[in-house]
Amino acid sequence: MILGQNQYGKAENRVVRIVRDGATHHIKDLNVSVSLSGDMADVHLSGCNAKVLTTDATKNTVFAFAKEHGIVSAEQFGIHLARHFVTSQDAVHTARIRIEEYAWGRIDVPGPKQHSFVRENRETRTAQVTFDGERWQVLSGLKDLVVLNSTDSEFHGYVKDRYTTLPETRDRILATQVHARWRHAWTGGSGQPQPAEWNRAYERAREHLLTAFADTYSLSLQQTLYSMGSRVIDQCPGIDEIRLSLPNKHHFLADLTPFGLDNDNEVYYAADRPYGLIEATILRDGAEPGIPVDAANP
Amino acid sequence: MILGQNQYGKAENRVVRIVRDGATHHIKDLNVSVSLSGDMADVHLSGCNAKVLTTDATKNTVFAFAKEHGIVSAEQFGIHLARHFVTSQDAVHTARIRIEEYAWGRIDVPGPKQHSFVRENRETRTAQVTFDGERWQVLSGLKDLVVLNSTDSEFHGYVKDRYTTLPETRDRILATQVHARWRHAWTGGSGQPQPAEWNRAYERAREHLLTAFADTYSLSLQQTLYSMGSRVIDQCPGIDEIRLSLPNKHHFLADLTPFGLDNDNEVYYAADRPYGLIEATILRDGAEPGIPVDAANP
Amino acid sequence: MILGQNQYGKAENRVVRIVRDGATHHIKDLNVSVSLSGDMADVHLSGCNAKVLTTDATKNTVFAFAKEHGIVSAEQFGIHLARHFVTSQDAVHTARIRIEEYAWGRIDVPGPKQHSFVRENRETRTAQVTFDGERWQVLSGLKDLVVLNSTDSEFHGYVKDRYTTLPETRDRILATQVHARWRHAWTGGSGQPQPAEWNRAYERAREHLLTAFADTYSLSLQQTLYSMGSRVIDQCPGIDEIRLSLPNKHHFLADLTPFGLDNDNEVYYAADRPYGLIEATILRDGAEPGIPVDAANP
Amino acid sequence: MILGQNQYGKAENRVVRIVRDGATHHIKDLNVSVSLSGDMADVHLSGCNAKVLTTDATKNTVFAFAKEHGIVSAEQFGIHLARHFVTSQDAVHTARIRIEEYAWGRIDVPGPKQHSFVRENRETRTAQVTFDGERWQVLSGLKDLVVLNSTDSEFHGYVKDRYTTLPETRDRILATQVHARWRHAWTGGSGQPQPAEWNRAYERAREHLLTAFADTYSLSLQQTLYSMGSRVIDQCPGIDEIRLSLPNKHHFLADLTPFGLDNDNEVYYAADRPYGLIEATILRDGAEPGIPVDAANP
Repeated sequence: MILGQNQYGKAENRVVRIVRDGATHHIKDLNVSVSLSGDMADVHLSGCNAKVLTTDATKNTVFAFAKEHGIVSAEQFGIHLARHFVTSQDAVHTARIRIEEYAWGRIDVPGPKQHSFVRENRETRTAQVTFDGERWQVLSGLKDLVVLNSTDSEFHGYVKDRYTTLPETRDRILATQVHARWRHAWTGGSGQPQPAEWNRAYERAREHLLTAFADTYSLSLQQTLYSMGSRVIDQCPGIDEIRLSLPNKHHFLADLTPFGLDNDNEVYYAADRPYGLIEATILRDGAEPGIPVDAANP
Repeated sequence: MILGQNQYGKAENRVVRIVRDGATHHIKDLNVSVSLSGDMADVHLSGCNAKVLTTDATKNTVFAFAKEHGIVSAEQFGIHLARHFVTSQDAVHTARIRIEEYAWGRIDVPGPKQHSFVRENRETRTAQVTFDGERWQVLSGLKDLVVLNSTDSEFHGYVKDRYTTLPETRDRILATQVHARWRHAWTGGSGQPQPAEWNRAYERAREHLLTAFADTYSLSLQQTLYSMGSRVIDQCPGIDEIRLSLPNKHHFLADLTPFGLDNDNEVYYAADRPYGLIEATILRDGAEPGIPVDAANP
Repeated sequence: MILGQNQYGKAENRVVRIVRDGATHHIKDLNVSVSLSGDMADVHLSGCNAKVLTTDATKNTVFAFAKEHGIVSAEQFGIHLARHFVTSQDAVHTARIRIEEYAWGRIDVPGPKQHSFVRENRETRTAQVTFDGERWQVLSGLKDLVVLNSTDSEFHGYVKDRYTTLPETRDRILATQVHARWRHAWTGGSGQPQPAEWNRAYERAREHLLTAFADTYSLSLQQTLYSMGSRVIDQCPGIDEIRLSLPNKHHFLADLTPFGLDNDNEVYYAADRPYGLIEATILRDGAEPGIPVDAANP
Repeated sequence: MILGQNQYGKAENRVVRIVRDGATHHIKDLNVSVSLSGDMADVHLSGCNAKVLTTDATKNTVFAFAKEHGIVSAEQFGIHLARHFVTSQDAVHTARIRIEEYAWGRIDVPGPKQHSFVRENRETRTAQVTFDGERWQVLSGLKDLVVLNSTDSEFHGYVKDRYTTLPETRDRILATQVHARWRHAWTGGSGQPQPAEWNRAYERAREHLLTAFADTYSLSLQQTLYSMGSRVIDQCPGIDEIRLSLPNKHHFLADLTPFGLDNDNEVYYAADRPYGLIEATILRDGAEPGIPVDAANP
C-alpha cells in the first residue's frame, strides 16, 4: 500500500477587509482556501499529528495576514500566505492558496461619507498561488461571466453521422458562461508584479475576453474560444497560457408556426441541460502547459 | 372532505426576446411562471380534464405572446398573459403571473454593431400580476440585492434575558440581502401605467431603497428597514405598500488578540448561518395590506 | 405611514443533539428558525431596542433548550421554544418556530458500539409551530420527496385552445417532488400529542402519501394530488388540513425514430424547466383553512 | 500561439431508462456527459466544422444507446459510448464519458404491480470511462455520502505555531461528506468485468468505505481517510488506486456555560464554512497514479 499525493488545509475562509481612508472606506471580500502538502505520511498512517499545522491555524493565519499585510490584490495576498506556510513549517513543502474575490461597487450618495457598498455580482474573480519553496505558479481567472451575441453566429458544415439530426443554421444566438484561468509568466525572482499590478492585469485580461467574444463573427464556439484565448496571449505579455471552459448556453428558437406566427430570431427558449461544453488551452509559443485539465474551480 | 384553494400552471418558462433595431439589438430575459385557478374541482375529484387548459399550452402562450405583444416591461407582459387566461377560459377565474427578470448590459465595442451583451448579475427584478376578471393586483420587487455599510451602525440597549450573551457595539458592519416587494396602487380602469413606465418605477424604487440604506445611521436593522420602506412609500406616489425581508448578513470582527494584533474594525469574518431575519410591511395611510406575509418568491 | 405586519428572529440555527444510551448513541439534526412578533413599533420607528430580545439570544435559547428539554420530536421542540418566547417576553405576542429535520440511519457494524451514522438524504421533514399566547397551530410536513410511476398515468381530454399543441397520451411517466404541509387538529388544552407521537404521526402521513401516489391510476396530476391529500385526511384523525405542492417533473419520451429505433416507453429525457406546478389544499369537513397559500418553505 | 489540450461534447444528458419485466418495472437514472478530443485544430483556428461531430449528435447517441444497449451499469454504458465515438470518427482520438447515477427504491405496495419508485437521495454514484483507441481507464466513485461518528475521535499533539489557538480534544464528533474515486485495474483485453459486476463492485467499495469510517478510532481525519482508502485497496482486488476528498464537517460543541448548563458532548452547532479539507490518494503496491489531483467531479 502506498500513500500517494495528499494535501490538506482550511477551505472557504470568508475574509472581508475594510480600509478606512478618512470617511472614505474601501472593501475587499475574499473566499480563501489553503492547501498544504509535504512530509505528512505519519498522520495518515498512525494519526500522529506532530508535523500537522492545524487547519484551524491556517484559518487564523488568513485573518491575521489580512491585518498584517492588508489585501491589495488576491494574488499578492496568496503569495504572502503561501510563502509563510512553506517557510515556517519544515513539514510543509508546497502550499497552494485558492481565492475567490467578489466585487463591490459604491452606492452613490453625495457628501464625504463613502462607506456604503452594493455587491456587483458580476463574475467571480479567481486566483491560485502555488509555491514549493523554489518556484511560484500564479493562476488568475474568472468564472460565471455570462455573455451573449444575438447574431453573427453560424453553425454548419459539420459531420453528419447516423445520430445527427441538428439542422444547420446561418444565424443563431451564441451565449456562454466563461470560466477562464490564465497562468502568469512570473515564477520567482525578478519581474514580480507589484501588488496592485495584479488587479490591472486582471481587468485587462477580462476586457480582452469580452472584446474578443463580441468581435468574433463565429462559425463555432471553438472558434470563439480560440479567438478569446489567443487575444489574451497576444495582448497580455505577462500571460503565457490560458484555459477556457465554455458551456454553450443554448437558446433555442421557439417554434411559433403552430400559432400562425413567424419567429425571425426574436423569441428564444433558454435551456438549462444538456449543454455543449467546449474546453481548450492556448499557449504562448515555447510555453509548457501548466494549467490542469479538468481542474475543479478555480 | 373539501377541496380548498387550488391552482396550477407552468412554472419557470425561460423566455428571451430579442428586438432588432437595425444593427442595434435589445434583449429581455425573463423567467415566467403561470398559475391559474377557478372551476377545477372535476380534475381533482375524478381526473376529468375537460376544463383544464394544459400547462403546456400556458407555456406556449408565454412564447407566443413574447412575439405578439413584445416585452416592454415584466409587469405589462404579465398583464397581457393574465388577461388572456381569465378572459379566454370560462373555467379560469383568476390568473397569477410571476416573473423574474435578469439584467444584461452591453459589451462596449466601437461601431454600429451592438448585439453583444454581458449579464449584469445585479439583483433579480420580480413582478407578480394577479387578475380575477375585475381587479388587478400588481406587485413589483427585487431580490438578492446585497448591500453593506462599513460603519454608522450601532446595536445596544436591548433586552438582557437569561440567554443573552451578545456584547453591545457602537460600530459594526451592517449588511443585508434585500428582498422587497411593493404593491402598486393601480387596480384597474384609468390610471394604468404605460408599458415602459413600470420600468421607470422599478428603477426609482430601487434607487430609493439603496439611498435609504446608505443614508440611515442605524441603531438596528429594523430601523434601517423602516427607513427603506417608508422612503419608497413617501417618494413613489404609485406605490401603496411595501414588504421587506432583510437577512442580517453577519460580519463578525475577527479576534486577532491571540496574535498580538489590534483589529480596529478592519478584518471581518463573513458568516453564512445562522442569520437574523427582519421582515416588515410598510403601508401608505389608509391602504389595506395586500402583500402576503411569508410568501415564497417573488 | 403605517407599520404593518412585522417579525424577526434568528434563522437557520443548525443544532445537532446526541443522546448517549451507554455505547448506543442517538442523533437529532435540526435547522431551527425563530420568528417573533408583537409590540415592536419602537425599534422600527426610532431604533430603540428596549423591547427587543436579540436574535442572538434566540439562537442561544435554541441550543440551551436542546440541552434542557432534549429533542424528542421537532414539533415538541418547537412547542417548548414558542411557549418560552411568548411567556417570557411581554413585547413578544406571537412566536413562530420553523424546523427542518434531516434523517440519519446507522452504519451497520457488529458489536455494542453504535455511534456511527450515515445521512439518509431522503426527504426533509418540516415542522412549524405558532403560538400567540392562547392558541397553537402545528404544521408538519415534508419536502423533496421525489416519486415516480413508470406507468398507469394517462393525460387526455383537455381543452384545446389556439396555443395547445400537446399530444394526448395513454401511458406516461408521472413523477413529482412532493412538498406537503399538514395542520394538526390540536390547538391547545387537552389532547396534546405526547412528544414522540409527533414522530409516529409523521411516519404515518408519509406512508399514506407514498401509498396513495403508488396506488392511484392517474388521469391527471391533480387527481393524484387529491388522492394523496384526501387519504391523509381520511386515515389520520389528528390532521384537519393538508396542502400539497407538486411540480410535474416531466419525463419526455426520447424521439428515436430518426435512428430507426422504437421507443416503447423505455427511454426518457428528464427535463428541468419549465415544469407544471399543481397545488391544492384538502380539508376535513368543517375545518377552516389555516395553511397559507404560496407560503415559503416549510 | 499554440492550441493545447482541448475537448468538447454534450454535458449533463439526463437519461432515464425503464425496463418492463411484466408488471415489474426497473429504472436507471443517469446524468451523462460526453467529452471528445483529437484532430480538432481546424475548428478552433478557422471555424471549419468538417471534422466536428456535433454535441447534439453525441446527445442523441446517449439516448439511442440507452435503447440499443440498455443500461446495466453506468460503467458498461460508458464503455459502449466511448468505444463508439473513438471507433466511428477518425478525428476523435479519445473519448471520456462521465456519469452520475441517482438511486431509486421501490414504494412498497402489495400485489404484482411494481412500477412505483421513490428517489433514495443517498449518495450520488459516479463513473468515468476514458478510451484512446487502445487503453481503457475506468474510474468509479461516489460523492455526497455524509457520515458521522459521535465519539471515538480525538485531536491533539499537533504543531503549535504563533497562529494556533485550537484547544486539544479527547472526544469530538467526526463528520465528513465523502467524495471518492477509485480506478479499476482493468485497462483492456481479457479480464473485463461483466456488465453487472460493476454494480457489485460499487456496492462492495461503498460498504468498505462505510465500515472503515465506523470502525476507525480516529486521531485525525487523515488517519480515517487512510483507513478508508487502504481498506478498499486491501479488500477489492480489482481496484488499484483510490482518491478521497473529505471535508471536515465541523460540529462545534455549543458553549452553554453562560446559562449554567453542562454540555457533556450532547449539543453541537453544525458549521458550514470554513471547513477542513483532507485529500489523499492510496495506491496498490506497484500501481502508477492515474486519478487526477484536484479534478472536478466526478
